[in-house]
Amino acid sequence: MKLFSSVKDVSDVNQLVSEAIQLKANPFADEHLGKHKTLGLIFLNPSLRTRLSTQKAAMNLGMQVMVMNMDKEGWALETQDGIIMNGTTVEHIREAAGVMGEYCDIIGIRSFPGLKDRNEDYSELIFNKFVQFCGVPVVSLESATRHPLQSLADLITIEELKTTAKPRVVLTWAPHVKPLPQAVANSFAEWMNKADYDFVITHPAGYDLAPEFVGNAIVTNNQDEALAGADFVYVKNWSSYQDYGKILSDGEGWMMTNEKLKLTNNAGVMHCLPVRRGLELSHEILDGPNSLVLNQANNRVWAAQAVLKMCLTQTLS
Amino acid sequence: MKLFSSVKDVSDVNQLVSEAIQLKANPFADEHLGKHKTLGLIFLNPSLRTRLSTQKAAMNLGMQVMVMNMDKEGWALETQDGIIMNGTTVEHIREAAGVMGEYCDIIGIRSFPGLKDRNEDYSELIFNKFVQFCGVPVVSLESATRHPLQSLADLITIEELKTTAKPRVVLTWAPHVKPLPQAVANSFAEWMNKADYDFVITHPAGYDLAPEFVGNAIVTNNQDEALAGADFVYVKNWSSYQDYGKILSDGEGWMMTNEKLKLTNNAGVMHCLPVRRGLELSHEILDGPNSLVLNQANNRVWAAQAVLKMCLTQTLS
Amino acid sequence: MKLFSSVKDVSDVNQLVSEAIQLKANPFADEHLGKHKTLGLIFLNPSLRTRLSTQKAAMNLGMQVMVMNMDKEGWALETQDGIIMNGTTVEHIREAAGVMGEYCDIIGIRSFPGLKDRNEDYSELIFNKFVQFCGVPVVSLESATRHPLQSLADLITIEELKTTAKPRVVLTWAPHVKPLPQAVANSFAEWMNKADYDFVITHPAGYDLAPEFVGNAIVTNNQDEALAGADFVYVKNWSSYQDYGKILSDGEGWMMTNEKLKLTNNAGVMHCLPVRRGLELSHEILDGPNSLVLNQANNRVWAAQAVLKMCLTQTLS
Repeated sequence: MKLFSSVKDVSDVNQLVSEAIQLKANPFADEHLGKHKTLGLIFLNPSLRTRLSTQKAAMNLGMQVMVMNMDKEGWALETQDGIIMNGTTVEHIREAAGVMGEYCDIIGIRSFPGLKDRNEDYSELIFNKFVQFCGVPVVSLESATRHPLQSLADLITIEELKTTAKPRVVLTWAPHVKPLPQAVANSFAEWMNKADYDFVITHPAGYDLAPEFVGNAIVTNNQDEALAGADFVYVKNWSSYQDYGKILSDGEGWMMTNEKLKLTNNAGVMHCLPVRRGLELSHEILDGPNSLVLNQANNRVWAAQAVLKMCLTQTLS
Repeated sequence: MKLFSSVKDVSDVNQLVSEAIQLKANPFADEHLGKHKTLGLIFLNPSLRTRLSTQKAAMNLGMQVMVMNMDKEGWALETQDGIIMNGTTVEHIREAAGVMGEYCDIIGIRSFPGLKDRNEDYSELIFNKFVQFCGVPVVSLESATRHPLQSLADLITIEELKTTAKPRVVLTWAPHVKPLPQAVANSFAEWMNKADYDFVITHPAGYDLAPEFVGNAIVTNNQDEALAGADFVYVKNWSSYQDYGKILSDGEGWMMTNEKLKLTNNAGVMHCLPVRRGLELSHEILDGPNSLVLNQANNRVWAAQAVLKMCLTQTLS
Repeated sequence: MKLFSSVKDVSDVNQLVSEAIQLKANPFADEHLGKHKTLGLIFLNPSLRTRLSTQKAAMNLGMQVMVMNMDKEGWALETQDGIIMNGTTVEHIREAAGVMGEYCDIIGIRSFPGLKDRNEDYSELIFNKFVQFCGVPVVSLESATRHPLQSLADLITIEELKTTAKPRVVLTWAPHVKPLPQAVANSFAEWMNKADYDFVITHPAGYDLAPEFVGNAIVTNNQDEALAGADFVYVKNWSSYQDYGKILSDGEGWMMTNEKLKLTNNAGVMHCLPVRRGLELSHEILDGPNSLVLNQANNRVWAAQAVLKMCLTQTLS
C-alpha cells in the first residue's frame, strides 16, 4: 500500500479489518517488520488520539517514530506554485515534503480544511501535494475531506460488536458551536457504503453531505425515523457542504439522549471524539453502558497498525 | 503500586529509597521489565527536569514513552461535570483520561494549581479526575498540592550524603517575584515527616503551610535560629496558604547566602530548580561546594525509575 | 570528540567525510555503539531538518533521543552572570545546562543570534556557556555564527558529486525579506577553506563576511564573473556583518536563475533550506535537474551520524 487516504485505496476492506482484529489479539507479533524503519508524523493541526494511537501502532511494529508539529515547531508552509515567497511563508511544501521523504520510510500527515473555499478543500490541495513531493508511502491522519483511520477503527468496532450480519447503522448530525469539517462524516459514510450494512444518514435540512460520500445511504431529515431500530448510532457534527462551512441553525433537539435511545434497538452510541458533552451527546449516554467511544479510541491503534503493516509488507519489503 | 501521588501511597519508604540507589548503581538491570509497556507523560503545564528525568527512567526500564503537552499540542480540557460544553473547552477530562488510558500502561500527569480557589486546588480536582477515569496506574508529575517525585529525589539525596543517622534538615522560605504553589514545600515536609530526621520549617509570618503537611516539624519565623547547626538546608519559595496564593512581602533578608551558611553545620544546600539566582539563592552558594542542586536533579531519574519499577512489578506483571 | 562547533574541532576532515559516506552505505553497522546512551536535542529556535536528521542519525546508532523545545516547552533562560533574577527569565543557563548534562550523554543545541549586538553574537555567549556548564560532549545544531552539521553535509554532497579533483565552488548571496544570520555562509566558507577547492564568494557591496571566515576565498561583487565556470553554486542570503544585522538593499538581480546557470559549468545548485522560491532561487532551478537541495538534506543524516559516532567512540567509550 503506497497511499491510505480513502477506502478506495484499500483493495480488500474485510481483510484489513480482520488483520486489525488479529493485531489486537497479538500486538507484537510483527515487531520485526518495522525494524530500522522510520515513521514521520506531521501535524499541521492539533491531535491527541491520532498521534498517540498511530505512534503506539508504529512502536508495536518495531518502527521508530518522529513527530513534527509543523504549526508549532516548524515553519509556515507555502502551498501555491509559482509564487514569489516574499511574505510570511518560510518554506514551500515541495521542499518540506521532499525533505521529510528523505528522512522517513512512511509519512503520516494531518491537514484540516480552511472551510472557506469548497473547491480548494475538496481538491485536497495540501494533502495531494504532500503525496506528490515526498516520494514515500503516505497515510492520512485526517485530510480536508476524509479521516480514514478513524473510519477503519469505527468499522472494526461495529464488526466486533454487531449481533446480526447486517446491522442498522445511523449517522446522525449533532449540534456544535464551531463550524467543523465534513471529514469524519464523509469518511464514515464512504466506509459504511463499502460494508454490507443497512446505512442511514439523518441531519437537518441544509446539511447534505457531498453525493460522492452519501453513496447508497438512505438520507432523511427525520431523526426519529432514522433512529428507529438502529443497532449503532454514530453522532457527529459537521458544517454545511452546500452553504460551505456555515452553521445553519443551533440544531436544537438534535442532541442524542437516553430518551432518543429508546427508539433504537438498544444501539451502541459512537463518536470519534473530542465530544462536546451536553451539546452533541448527553452526559447520561457518555457515562452509560451504550457508549462505545472508548472502544473506538482503542481500535484506532489496531486500525493504524493494520495500515502500517500493509505499507511495510506491500511497499517497503 | 497503582497510584504515586503522595508519600502515603508508599508502603515502605526506606525500601523505595534503597531501590532507587540500587538502580542508580545499575540503571539497566531491569530493562526487560518495561518491554512492550508504554508510559504516557501528560503535561498541562511546562516541564524540563520532570519530563527528561521521567522519560530517561522509563527508557532505562525498556519502556516506550509518549509525551503529550496538552496545553500546546492538545485541546483545552473541561473539568466540570454536568456542564453544557458550548464554550472554549474542547474535550472533557473524562474522555481525555479514558482515551489515554487506552493507549498507555502507566500515565504520568502534571497539573498545577490555579492559586485562586484554595478549596478547589487542595481537593486536587484535575489530578483526581484523571486518576478516576484513566483506568491505569498514575504517577504524579506535580499536582496542585504535591510534587512527590521531587521529594523522593530529595530524600535520596539526603540519604546518600548524610553523615549522621538523624541529620538536621531545614526547609526555609525564600523570596520570589511570582506567586508559586506550595506543592514542593508541602511535599518535602510530608516526606521529611516520614524520615526520622530533626526537621525544621522556617518562613516569615503568614506563610504557614497547611497543618496536614507540617506534621511534627518545628516551625519558626526566625531563620537564623532554624539554620543553626543545620546539615541540609532546603530553599524554596511558596505563596501564602492562609491568604491564599498571595505574596505578602518582598521577603528582604530571607535569601540564602554564604553568610547565613556560617550558621549551619556546613550544610548541603538544596533547591528543586528552576531557581532565581540572586533572589532565592545567592550566586556564590549555587556556584560553590555546598550546592546539591545537580545531585537532586540527577536523583530525579532514580526516583522516577524506582516508582515506575514498582508500578510495573506490582500492578502490570 | 568533545565539541563539534566548527571545522576547527575536527582533526581530520577527510576522514570525517569518508566516515559519513560509509555510514550512508551501511546505516545500521554501528547500532551497538549508542546502546544505553542518550542524546538530548535542545532547541532555542525552530528546526525541521536539523531535528529530524539528527534524531534519525542517533537512532541509527542505537541511541535514545530526548528533544526539548526550550522556547515552547521549557522556561525563558537567563544568560547574564551575577544578575538578580527578578524579571521574566525563569532559569539560569548554568542550571539548565548542568541539569541536561545529568540526563544526557551527548547534547546538541541550537541557538540563533539576536542580530542586534555583533560582539555578543560573535562571542557565542549562549553556546559557549552551555558547553561550559553541561559537562558532556556538545554538538552545535547551529549557533550564532556557524552551522557546522550543515557545512559537513554540504561538503559530503560536493565530494560525492564532483567530477574534478578541485572543483570551482561559488557561494553567492541571494535576496531575502528578513534579516538572516551569517551562520550558514560563515560556516560554509570555513569548511570550503579546509577543502582544497577553487572557492569564490560573491555578494553585493556591504555584505562582506567576517575575515576569519572568508579565509583564502576569492571575493567579488560581480556575480557573473564569480559564476563563470562554476561546478557548484551555493545560494544563500545573509544580513550585513558590517552594518550588523541590516538588509542593505532589495538585492534585485541577485536571484539565481536558469539564465545565470548558463554561465556555469552546468553547476549543481545548493541551498541549506528553507528556501524562498522566486526570491532566493527560481522555481525552475529548484524543480530542475541541477538542484542538489534534497541531496544536501539527505546528507544531513550522515553528517550527524559521523559526528555522533566520533563523540561516542572518542569520548564516551
